[in-house]
Amino acid sequence: MDNMKTRDPVEQWGRFEVELNGPADGNPFVEVELLGVFRRGHRAVEVDGFYDGEGVYRLRFLPDMTGEWSWTTRSNRPALDGRSGTFRCVEPGEGNRGPVRVRNTFHFAYEDGTPYRPIGTTCYAWNHQGDAREEQTLATLAASPFNKLRMCLFPKHYEFSRNEPPRHAFATDQAGALDLTRFHPDYFRHLELRIGQLRDLGIEADLILFHPYDRWGYAQMPPDVDDRVLRYVVARLAAYRNVWWSFANEYDLLKAKSPADWDRFFRIVQARDPYQHLRSIHNCRGFYDHAKPWVTHCSIQRPELDRVAEWRRQYGKPVIVDECCYEGDIQHNWGNLTAKELVHRFWLGTTRGGYVGHGETYYNDEEVLWWSKGGVLRGGSPKRLAFLRAVLDDAPPEGLDPVEMGGGLRVAGRPGEYYLAYLGNTQPRWKVFPLPDDAAFRIDVIDTWEMTVTPVAGTHRGETRVDLPAKPHIAVRIRREA
Amino acid sequence: MDNMKTRDPVEQWGRFEVELNGPADGNPFVEVELLGVFRRGHRAVEVDGFYDGEGVYRLRFLPDMTGEWSWTTRSNRPALDGRSGTFRCVEPGEGNRGPVRVRNTFHFAYEDGTPYRPIGTTCYAWNHQGDAREEQTLATLAASPFNKLRMCLFPKHYEFSRNEPPRHAFATDQAGALDLTRFHPDYFRHLELRIGQLRDLGIEADLILFHPYDRWGYAQMPPDVDDRVLRYVVARLAAYRNVWWSFANEYDLLKAKSPADWDRFFRIVQARDPYQHLRSIHNCRGFYDHAKPWVTHCSIQRPELDRVAEWRRQYGKPVIVDECCYEGDIQHNWGNLTAKELVHRFWLGTTRGGYVGHGETYYNDEEVLWWSKGGVLRGGSPKRLAFLRAVLDDAPPEGLDPVEMGGGLRVAGRPGEYYLAYLGNTQPRWKVFPLPDDAAFRIDVIDTWEMTVTPVAGTHRGETRVDLPAKPHIAVRIRREA
Repeated sequence: MDNMKTRDPVEQWGRFEVELNGPADGNPFVEVELLGVFRRGHRAVEVDGFYDGEGVYRLRFLPDMTGEWSWTTRSNRPALDGRSGTFRCVEPGEGNRGPVRVRNTFHFAYEDGTPYRPIGTTCYAWNHQGDAREEQTLATLAASPFNKLRMCLFPKHYEFSRNEPPRHAFATDQAGALDLTRFHPDYFRHLELRIGQLRDLGIEADLILFHPYDRWGYAQMPPDVDDRVLRYVVARLAAYRNVWWSFANEYDLLKAKSPADWDRFFRIVQARDPYQHLRSIHNCRGFYDHAKPWVTHCSIQRPELDRVAEWRRQYGKPVIVDECCYEGDIQHNWGNLTAKELVHRFWLGTTRGGYVGHGETYYNDEEVLWWSKGGVLRGGSPKRLAFLRAVLDDAPPEGLDPVEMGGGLRVAGRPGEYYLAYLGNTQPRWKVFPLPDDAAFRIDVIDTWEMTVTPVAGTHRGETRVDLPAKPHIAVRIRREA
Repeated sequence: MDNMKTRDPVEQWGRFEVELNGPADGNPFVEVELLGVFRRGHRAVEVDGFYDGEGVYRLRFLPDMTGEWSWTTRSNRPALDGRSGTFRCVEPGEGNRGPVRVRNTFHFAYEDGTPYRPIGTTCYAWNHQGDAREEQTLATLAASPFNKLRMCLFPKHYEFSRNEPPRHAFATDQAGALDLTRFHPDYFRHLELRIGQLRDLGIEADLILFHPYDRWGYAQMPPDVDDRVLRYVVARLAAYRNVWWSFANEYDLLKAKSPADWDRFFRIVQARDPYQHLRSIHNCRGFYDHAKPWVTHCSIQRPELDRVAEWRRQYGKPVIVDECCYEGDIQHNWGNLTAKELVHRFWLGTTRGGYVGHGETYYNDEEVLWWSKGGVLRGGSPKRLAFLRAVLDDAPPEGLDPVEMGGGLRVAGRPGEYYLAYLGNTQPRWKVFPLPDDAAFRIDVIDTWEMTVTPVAGTHRGETRVDLPAKPHIAVRIRREA
């Protein structure tokens, strides 16, 4: 059960919460400061508290070690200052592996060391559709291969997404205008409910903090409001282990923001988030400089998946091509790929050492397109992405890096151990692989579309010719014999 | 009948030939100079003669006007000097439209004004395979859509092409070594036979003068031999109206040649060819500077057909992507495209304002692969390229230039008159076209793979939504109502 106060004991990477009563007069959102300090042994972790309305203040904490923790508060209001307590943190429960971190420069792992290979999808405004649709989306996700979801903090105004959201992030005045000095706690409680449900499904919430598709004013708030939003969101959400900070979708279309604004946003969250959740920013056209130190990984919109290896070299970080266009049939070229083409792009990106994102835009009379509103999946790619995910689950935990094997082969793997070659749109009858001479390898021919794995008889070493079915979308997996 | 002396009268753009007897002693190939001057009214055209062995010298001429022509000779040998004669040039026969020229900056036309839209193929060494195979190739070409053929002057040594050629271009000594000072006239007579047969099939011979695939020494001749080869080839072949000069295949792999060598080769042929046949040079990786004045059009190897519009802008000349990889199933990525992918690339290049070349590399036990040896075609692309050719035959004679219509549409045409949009790998259910308001247009939906043309009911103007079959490889043709 999510939206309740967490009890003692709390599990490691679970959410511990302190509820405090304090002043409700004036505007607590801007006037009241509340800080919590959580201690275990020699360690002290500072976290921002937040006002949750009706005189209630909360401190949330994501403990990363088992054992006895204590906490104290500091505040500019006596009722909230100098409060303290303790709690016990116990072993994580089933499926709780901690937040996702960058590992091995270009890859990811949960904090417990389990590899995490993002197979993400996109439902930008699913959390602004009302309970019936949102629960349908959760059910669809539960049966899907996706372990990451791109979603927007604020409501979305765009083609096929014109409906009024059930709630706004700020209080509204009589005329319906947003009061940018007062958050609407219900809005955030709803968001937390959904993020917690994603967590329970094993799905990382790649939360998009700003985006340009707006008719209410969220895309053009003054800098002090932007900054307060960031601090409030971090105070509320950082204790959810599955949160990632995506500073923008198509940051370069947010005309009211300057490059310096984006740098400042990153630095605010970098300073305030005690757990250092992943941070990225997604382009429309030109890239933000992903080399900047506060960017943990590249979040890219581009259809050219063969460039992933170049971006890895350029930025020295993991590359997720979150948008390479979507499976669908609408008029826009970003939303009318065949399932085959999208699955092809996943394999291209994977075998260039990166990760790729899914989205679906099949038109229907209700105008409920998955990429925006969620709902149901209609396409042919998800089951093939489940197959890809299974192949990756069986790959080396360190992740797949591009391997140069010559002969125009597109291969990722770990030299000497594991090779995953993808032959893309080509249809060769055979390929020659220059394997090491000093080990024996087992070989499988994988049909990425038909989802079959066909072992090649025997073991192999040195220059090895592999006969192939002379059709497109074939991969070859080569593993050193145990 | 080709290899015979042409009789008077000769047709316009036919081959007139003068046979003269002269000295056979010494080495006529290097010692004897022979020049012909052909006159009609105030015009005088100088052409080089050549030694054809056994004391026979020839002057060949490609008359470009009907009427009475006269000729005289100059030579450093008395027997060949001051000879003269006349002949009559009459209207061209059926199918004879003259040499191909650049027209409208980015396109081509025969000299009689008929548009020429290259749909080329590649049989590099077909003319070095012996009569049976060569005649089979000609029969295949006769039933094909191709109107241009890339072929090599010299024999080819490469994977799947290891057989010894029936003849060499130079005399051989007892040990089989080439005597680079003496041409072998039979070799060139055979080449002329084949080029004449291509001409009679309506096929332009894109003759590759140098190439790197060699075990005999043709790729590493001294500069004086290279230059003599060029002069001899021009003297023999320029009177064939269907000859194009392709200075190299993969010039950048000919390590013995410098950039200055290629410039010199172009200038020699530019100076010696009285008819200014088309001149180009084909890359492997980096491009030769196609902006140089002696280059008539870009001959490109690259798979990225969407860049054709960029290359048009860069060089200001027609763009032919002669190699965008081939339909086939061999191990090399340049030779294992599906038919669908190759046809797709043709449509991409066409709707970016360029032209694309075909090649086929299906493996077979005889190792007779079309791209190298000719023979038969096995693939699925030729009939679809015939369909494309028919679509182009029906397009404006000025040629198709990229048209900016917004909305991510890939369109070529003539604004206000004719638009050919290609939707590529996408599968939209509809597209919106911003047509002019001041005219009515008829619209056809074209399935480029199924080869169907489906008219849309009615006529249309202004912003027009066109419903589509939601499958890939669809084109939309929009023509102003007559």
